[in-house]
Amino acid sequence: MNKFSVIITAGGIGKRMGGDLPKQFLELNNLPMLMHTLRIFHDFDPSAQLILTLPAEWQEYWATLCAKHQFNLPHQVVDGGKERYHSIQNALNYCQGDYVAIHDGVRPFVDQKTLMNCWNGVQEFGAVIPVLDLKESLRKVGENESNSVNRSEFRIVQTPQCFKKDILLVAYQKSFHEGITDDASLVEEAGYAIHLVEGNEQNIKITTPTDLRFADFLLRS
Amino acid sequence: MNKFSVIITAGGIGKRMGGDLPKQFLELNNLPMLMHTLRIFHDFDPSAQLILTLPAEWQEYWATLCAKHQFNLPHQVVDGGKERYHSIQNALNYCQGDYVAIHDGVRPFVDQKTLMNCWNGVQEFGAVIPVLDLKESLRKVGENESNSVNRSEFRIVQTPQCFKKDILLVAYQKSFHEGITDDASLVEEAGYAIHLVEGNEQNIKITTPTDLRFADFLLRS
Repeated sequence: MNKFSVIITAGGIGKRMGGDLPKQFLELNNLPMLMHTLRIFHDFDPSAQLILTLPAEWQEYWATLCAKHQFNLPHQVVDGGKERYHSIQNALNYCQGDYVAIHDGVRPFVDQKTLMNCWNGVQEFGAVIPVLDLKESLRKVGENESNSVNRSEFRIVQTPQCFKKDILLVAYQKSFHEGITDDASLVEEAGYAIHLVEGNEQNIKITTPTDLRFADFLLRS
Repeated sequence: MNKFSVIITAGGIGKRMGGDLPKQFLELNNLPMLMHTLRIFHDFDPSAQLILTLPAEWQEYWATLCAKHQFNLPHQVVDGGKERYHSIQNALNYCQGDYVAIHDGVRPFVDQKTLMNCWNGVQEFGAVIPVLDLKESLRKVGENESNSVNRSEFRIVQTPQCFKKDILLVAYQKSFHEGITDDASLVEEAGYAIHLVEGNEQNIKITTPTDLRFADFLLRS
């Protein structure tokens, strides 16, 4: 019996990275980023069900990578959809846990403390996301102007975003529309409150060549 | 005749870094961070007047560092004040340029393109700051709740923040109050519009040990 299901999303085509290979396959310290990410969740909760959403056209390549790196960690690969929303909606069909954690495949540095905060928090509150304070000033831009806002009133949102499965199923009954940026906003639209827990600074989303260099540096040092 | 004056602020006591030495003195690739920062502005605009605000109790140490590293770049050291606001207010007394750029000493990775955007922009618009899009979702927190906001309506604010000197002098006539987070917000309060230009991703504010390690890595590689 799995209490937690973890959906690792790896649908992005990595336009910002400039290469042809989707960024989730890029290697950090000689191992594809996604394998680091899967490993972290397994190490934290070996009973968690790991589900990887991958575009159909990349699944054979992933199998080749797993063979090459002798990556034997149990995980299911399911089809990614057109948008992140569709990938999660599909992955939800396979979740056996009472709780579901949804995590960006390109965040291989989530730490055990953040996962502990999330796992504990979701069992108490039903919907939990890890966040961080902003280190820099923030402005709101309009059509013709921009204004400073008080950064202490804002938080940067990370993943894994964790929910009681029943809540997530209700939220994902809503059809896709523009403006869904993360699962929390969808769950919120469905009428549930989101509880915030502390994330970790190194839990960056690797989307640019600078991020990738930093990630490689962190893993080697 | 200097057209631009650059105020480099180095007043922070670096609480977040955990060490006793203020972070602006920490070395990147064997050279104190502040020297990298000063060098970048000099390389971009050799005619710029460089003014460094330093707490009085650290000025002798700075002189020792300059001797040790044979750092001969012309710059003036002026007293930093209790808050960043007071440091700038004091430094303004020494500015000879028609335009003033105010830059965090702990941002040694501002690039030539960002500086070009700022130098060109301020001469056209009078008040310019470099900004970046957010890569991650954003939430606004209230006393008892939090809500997702549309991150595409927000920008991360960097430095140098650049102003026509006359505008800055008017803005700094206002007395200090809580909630001044950057020069742009002060200039805005004085009734001037702020023009946004594109910053650069590596222009991070070095405030944590992780930032420092990454910065050191960037400079060495």
